[in-house]
Amino acid sequence: MKKTKRSTVKRAPKRGHYDSETVHKILDQNHICHVGIVYNGAPLVIPTLYGRSGNQLFIHGASVSRLMTELEQEIELSISVAKTKGLVLARSAFHHSLNYESVVLFGKGKSITDTEEKRDALKSVSDHLIPGRWEEVRQPTTKELKATKIIAIPLEEVTAKIRTGGPVDDKSDYKLDVWAGELPLIEHYGSPIPDENFDSKSKNLPQSVLSLLDS
Amino acid sequence: MKKTKRSTVKRAPKRGHYDSETVHKILDQNHICHVGIVYNGAPLVIPTLYGRSGNQLFIHGASVSRLMTELEQEIELSISVAKTKGLVLARSAFHHSLNYESVVLFGKGKSITDTEEKRDALKSVSDHLIPGRWEEVRQPTTKELKATKIIAIPLEEVTAKIRTGGPVDDKSDYKLDVWAGELPLIEHYGSPIPDENFDSKSKNLPQSVLSLLDS
Repeated sequence: MKKTKRSTVKRAPKRGHYDSETVHKILDQNHICHVGIVYNGAPLVIPTLYGRSGNQLFIHGASVSRLMTELEQEIELSISVAKTKGLVLARSAFHHSLNYESVVLFGKGKSITDTEEKRDALKSVSDHLIPGRWEEVRQPTTKELKATKIIAIPLEEVTAKIRTGGPVDDKSDYKLDVWAGELPLIEHYGSPIPDENFDSKSKNLPQSVLSLLDS
Repeated sequence: MKKTKRSTVKRAPKRGHYDSETVHKILDQNHICHVGIVYNGAPLVIPTLYGRSGNQLFIHGASVSRLMTELEQEIELSISVAKTKGLVLARSAFHHSLNYESVVLFGKGKSITDTEEKRDALKSVSDHLIPGRWEEVRQPTTKELKATKIIAIPLEEVTAKIRTGGPVDDKSDYKLDVWAGELPLIEHYGSPIPDENFDSKSKNLPQSVLSLLDS
């Protein structure tokens, strides 16, 4: 990754990571990224789905959408992804914190126009959310591909930030009779809810869902 | 809430909500917001903690931090908060979706400089993360308050977006032998991990943590 002035962590520099492995791992565990652009001279941040393949991030949207129409002009963007991993309870209000994993990136997107590249990028988004699902479902038609814009963003100027562990209190506070520690926040998938309109012969859960529930 | 051109949902307008109750509910269920500003002419999106009190959002940070130093100049900002509530599995790749709850806001922040107002705003951030915790811990000192900047952002130009429910497939796809439905994504707190440096007499969990585990 390219470490630039704006992508270098200044506060708590030990939390900063600039290797692909860490960046990819964090990106692969989240669903929503927050895309920031300058729109009519003011900042605009929009949450949206994404996918990743190698060192590229893909976002997609309706061809007519404001965000897609702006991004295909290869304007500067910044993207943030973050997940809370736990609450950090200290003995003082001041030293409370959050355990988290985040990625912030800078760059410019590029519209993917080639039909086969588009299909591959959409498969990345699908695989990102539900590995194996792509092969189970009806593939996109030419019309559907036309209705979708895809922007590829290189993962070059990227910073990952991670905080783990318990609180770091002031020395003089350790004697206080206050419980301190971490409260992990955990995500899990609940029971699948079949579509009411489901009327196929097989009501068995597909392999993609079984794998997600196992993971 | 003030509905403006840029804060009005154009795609899937039925998902847009502009009432305080919905906006507050979504904000109160998340920890991290993504703050976008224009910095050196380019967009910059930074994830950070926040709190809310009434119709104000508070973010805080070290007095020397880049984001805080920019925001106290009352520049334009945009903030995005989003949570994945579940995956939506359709019969076609195209109609896959995400159930989510998001808030996007526009506005300008204002630095809080009055010591008592600062204390109240920090309490809002603390209450937002762990209700009741503020009263259990050592209060901020004057020095700690000085080391912290707090920006208040009015919740005026705000949009909430919510997607719920199962997939909406093309009519002709309902006959396909493909499982379709929702896979809810659920968050819960894990077992509290006491700080290794904990040596107080009482090792009982505090009321704030018990309440979070109950909620």
